[in-house]
Amino acid sequence: MSDYSKLEKCLDYQFKNKDLIIEALTHKSLKKPYNNERLEFLGDAVLNLIVGEYLYKKFPNSNEGELSKIRASLVNENGFTKLANEIKLGDYIFISTAEERNNGRHKASILSDAFEAIMGAIYLESGLDALKPIILDLLEKSYEKINLDVLFSDYKTALQEITQAQFGSIPEYKIEGSYGPDHKKEFEVSIWIDGKKYGQAKGKSKKLAQQAVAKIAIEQFKGDN
Amino acid sequence: MSDYSKLEKCLDYQFKNKDLIIEALTHKSLKKPYNNERLEFLGDAVLNLIVGEYLYKKFPNSNEGELSKIRASLVNENGFTKLANEIKLGDYIFISTAEERNNGRHKASILSDAFEAIMGAIYLESGLDALKPIILDLLEKSYEKINLDVLFSDYKTALQEITQAQFGSIPEYKIEGSYGPDHKKEFEVSIWIDGKKYGQAKGKSKKLAQQAVAKIAIEQFKGDN
Repeated sequence: MSDYSKLEKCLDYQFKNKDLIIEALTHKSLKKPYNNERLEFLGDAVLNLIVGEYLYKKFPNSNEGELSKIRASLVNENGFTKLANEIKLGDYIFISTAEERNNGRHKASILSDAFEAIMGAIYLESGLDALKPIILDLLEKSYEKINLDVLFSDYKTALQEITQAQFGSIPEYKIEGSYGPDHKKEFEVSIWIDGKKYGQAKGKSKKLAQQAVAKIAIEQFKGDN
Repeated sequence: MSDYSKLEKCLDYQFKNKDLIIEALTHKSLKKPYNNERLEFLGDAVLNLIVGEYLYKKFPNSNEGELSKIRASLVNENGFTKLANEIKLGDYIFISTAEERNNGRHKASILSDAFEAIMGAIYLESGLDALKPIILDLLEKSYEKINLDVLFSDYKTALQEITQAQFGSIPEYKIEGSYGPDHKKEFEVSIWIDGKKYGQAKGKSKKLAQQAVAKIAIEQFKGDN
């Protein structure tokens, strides 16, 4: 039997019904009379709602197509595995010895399902208002500010719409340099619109640097209006 | 401007934020700065959760595949149009004159979207606990008892509840035989409750045979009462 106290600490939540939590942590490979599949069904729906509502409120100007797209980028196996790893859920799940040998404790599908099940269990015993802060906290921890901005705000796309309307052309990005050792590289990118340079910025990848400099340019266009 | 009072009466709910309800009733054909698409995004997620939780609790012995299948049969355009008609939502929506001429007030897609949006709006202004009884009430009104039974048809669970209350024990299913070639096998199952045989039935799988014989037993208990 695992010691849940660390998991509880990590989630800043005290489990009430231990049977329910055990069910949520139990993978079907154990062939017990219960496993976490039913709770996963419930957890999936509640996560979809919490993330949907979060995005609905965070992006009052996005239409439902954009909201769906952003949500789909968070609410999926990869996204939930990321969150499961944030709370080290793999340390607590119950799987068969065959799955254990098969590296099941680190499999995305198993971790993601268990994550949904745990959240389903918390919802069931404590309700939506108890679960919301847990999820939003985890989301913000896992997707750091800069990543969140990139994920949510596609500055390149937004800028392109502006420049096409204003100049009938799209921005040009030039790589000005790259710095640091391979595992810690930074890129510096400049942005040119209609023959004029609008800014220069660094980022941990070319993509991040482009987004950063697109943001700088957008702010200038906003300033003009 | 519509008179909402009838809709409010029908839902047994007082709208708080009139702007939000107007948004929920406004179809995109009107080309206003707002329409019900964002609220529909939210409503879709909240309906999925409410119906999912309802089924989760109603069918403790169904696995997640069965729950998903039942939910999918309720949470879809047809299902929501049925519920929209139950509250005569078509009388209250705002659509363009072109859509009006095009019979838009009776289109499944428009009604279903508006239904999700209205439920999203109620969730937003009053929360999950206010919305749940509204939805469950509508579901039970729209799907009469007999349909619900057929739709869900988890007779085993229903019977178990009856026998636990009446005898403090659960039914026993015995396989009496199996017939036919492998690809077309049939199973015959009998049911025993408190030491007495209540019936025997065939089915294309053990599970289906058990459901069939559980139904036979339920009818006897219903006849008794």
